[in-house]
Amino acid sequence: MARLHTALSDQLGLVVPIVQAPMAGGPASIELVAAVSQAGGLGSFGFAYTPPEEMKRQAAAVRAKTNGPFGINLFGAPLPSDVPDADQREALSAVAGYYAELGLPHPEPVRAPYGPDFSAQLDAVVDIRPKVFTTHLSALSGVQLGRLKAAGILVGASATCVAEAEMLQSLGFDFVIAQGGEAGGHRGTYLRDPYEAMTGTLALTRLLAKAVRLPVIAAGGIMDGEGIAAVLCLGAQAAQLGTAFIACPESGASQAHKEALLAAREDITTITEKFSGKPARGIANRFTREMQARNALQLVFPAQNSVTAKLRAASAKAGNPDFVAMWAGQGLALSRALPAAALIARLEAEAIEAIRRTANIVKE
Amino acid sequence: MARLHTALSDQLGLVVPIVQAPMAGGPASIELVAAVSQAGGLGSFGFAYTPPEEMKRQAAAVRAKTNGPFGINLFGAPLPSDVPDADQREALSAVAGYYAELGLPHPEPVRAPYGPDFSAQLDAVVDIRPKVFTTHLSALSGVQLGRLKAAGILVGASATCVAEAEMLQSLGFDFVIAQGGEAGGHRGTYLRDPYEAMTGTLALTRLLAKAVRLPVIAAGGIMDGEGIAAVLCLGAQAAQLGTAFIACPESGASQAHKEALLAAREDITTITEKFSGKPARGIANRFTREMQARNALQLVFPAQNSVTAKLRAASAKAGNPDFVAMWAGQGLALSRALPAAALIARLEAEAIEAIRRTANIVKE
Repeated sequence: MARLHTALSDQLGLVVPIVQAPMAGGPASIELVAAVSQAGGLGSFGFAYTPPEEMKRQAAAVRAKTNGPFGINLFGAPLPSDVPDADQREALSAVAGYYAELGLPHPEPVRAPYGPDFSAQLDAVVDIRPKVFTTHLSALSGVQLGRLKAAGILVGASATCVAEAEMLQSLGFDFVIAQGGEAGGHRGTYLRDPYEAMTGTLALTRLLAKAVRLPVIAAGGIMDGEGIAAVLCLGAQAAQLGTAFIACPESGASQAHKEALLAAREDITTITEKFSGKPARGIANRFTREMQARNALQLVFPAQNSVTAKLRAASAKAGNPDFVAMWAGQGLALSRALPAAALIARLEAEAIEAIRRTANIVKE
Repeated sequence: MARLHTALSDQLGLVVPIVQAPMAGGPASIELVAAVSQAGGLGSFGFAYTPPEEMKRQAAAVRAKTNGPFGINLFGAPLPSDVPDADQREALSAVAGYYAELGLPHPEPVRAPYGPDFSAQLDAVVDIRPKVFTTHLSALSGVQLGRLKAAGILVGASATCVAEAEMLQSLGFDFVIAQGGEAGGHRGTYLRDPYEAMTGTLALTRLLAKAVRLPVIAAGGIMDGEGIAAVLCLGAQAAQLGTAFIACPESGASQAHKEALLAAREDITTITEKFSGKPARGIANRFTREMQARNALQLVFPAQNSVTAKLRAASAKAGNPDFVAMWAGQGLALSRALPAAALIARLEAEAIEAIRRTANIVKE
């Protein structure tokens, strides 16, 4: 049977050069990570908002299910200090009507810390020793990187522009994830204005493949094997897919999120800061549209994530998509509700078929 | 010697499945169109702002140089009627300082018609009988399409979303150009808000290839053979490259434009309406930044193009990039200043090499 692998996929211990994107906030459940890893891809946890003990519990749960390698991703953006109540008033009142509509009590000021302590999370990563660790929204200090590498962990990070990829290379990262403009979830940009670093996956993958010697994993808009074949042609050594896995039964995404993905016929995504305080791509819904139209004030990242937390949870629980952060990439209309193992088998078969079809275009 | 061709490239009479994008306003000179066609690609005129007699003159000049097939593209967006002077005051005063700075007289109100008559241009196309005709910013009426097809012309149009591709298919177009978000120049969107139809080339090509039976030409961010190989994997039957040809010696782009492309190391493009009145992607410069920052008023498309015409021309003539509309796609930093024939040979060789490299990733 034909198989697909690259130097990087071999190094990562993968059977197929497919990375399941570490979607923080639900989709990347224990079940999804385990199923992807068991099927030969790189299952990945998005532990941005996950405290260290919970990180360890989830990692252990995956290890109880599979010996396959997995990855852990953290958000490295610095946490802001406590936002004074007076400075929260407008952002809270911007969502108060929605809270009332869902039968929730009036939103209270949100208190720091607005996320787990990054170095405590990094300690947990070193403890867990996943095969792979990646950061989003930042690089790492030399000391942090050295500790992870000394623990035998392969370390990568997202880059949305040449400058970020070059920085990762100079710091000694093992690989770079080219996060193209199509990608769902938070834009990983930290060296440029994120709105000026929305380069599409095709162009960005070529830019980074030429700019750095590091292996490149391409991400953004890849939903099927044809997309995987395409990024391999662009010089990527693996493809990272997030949205493609959200509709899997193993994914922890809300039912509203899965249904919205499967119903989509077009790119119906938008970039919004209104859920978390930083720009992220997701399905446009009532919340993103109304908050944008009203030019509603939001708190700094990730304090705004705390402001919207109860709203998002209650909306998802009610099966109402209006206030759910339905992160998704621009290829969402190509979503398939397959079990992760079946999806990975399909992705590999499609990629091989696309490569063979394209090879037949070359006439000797 | 290995060659690359598809059913569509055969139908278009091409030696390689490469379309030179019909960049209106300078780059797609007689010399560039002729050189690309002579080299086996599809040279294409962007005749958006070109009157019928001049269209015929330029087409004849290409035919005097080559027997290769070429294409003609027009902008099908409806022309607005005359904008009253009072309604022009603010848009003119927004650029008056720049006019003064370049030693130009104070800008005068601009008068309709703001472009050539579309049906007279279509008559000229039928007269010229190019191999290919495409529209941007619109479809065509059934009558218009029928006339072109009866003249033996293959007819295509840009689509930036599934809805546009489906409309082209139902009207009987011969092929569709998937204009991905990376693409330079005017966004071709006409059925959606253009800012909601900025899907990256990778995702859009897959969406359109699955949504319609028409052959798809992929456009946006493709700068080298690896990009061409990638879109062939995505199911496209040809690749359309614009920016890649701008730095060619045959291109009619201004020196300032060529130099800016060749100096770029990153995606330094932005989407701006300030030059023409409709959103288009080009290199961010003083004009786009200041007009955006001041939230300067502009006239409706394409009257704004008349407002900025003298400014753009004087700036280009002075070798000053500040006020030139330097349309470019997000892959601009991969520009090469090769003669068109050498570039096409290089593109084909790179594509074949990328396809072979990728085929070797498949292990039996």
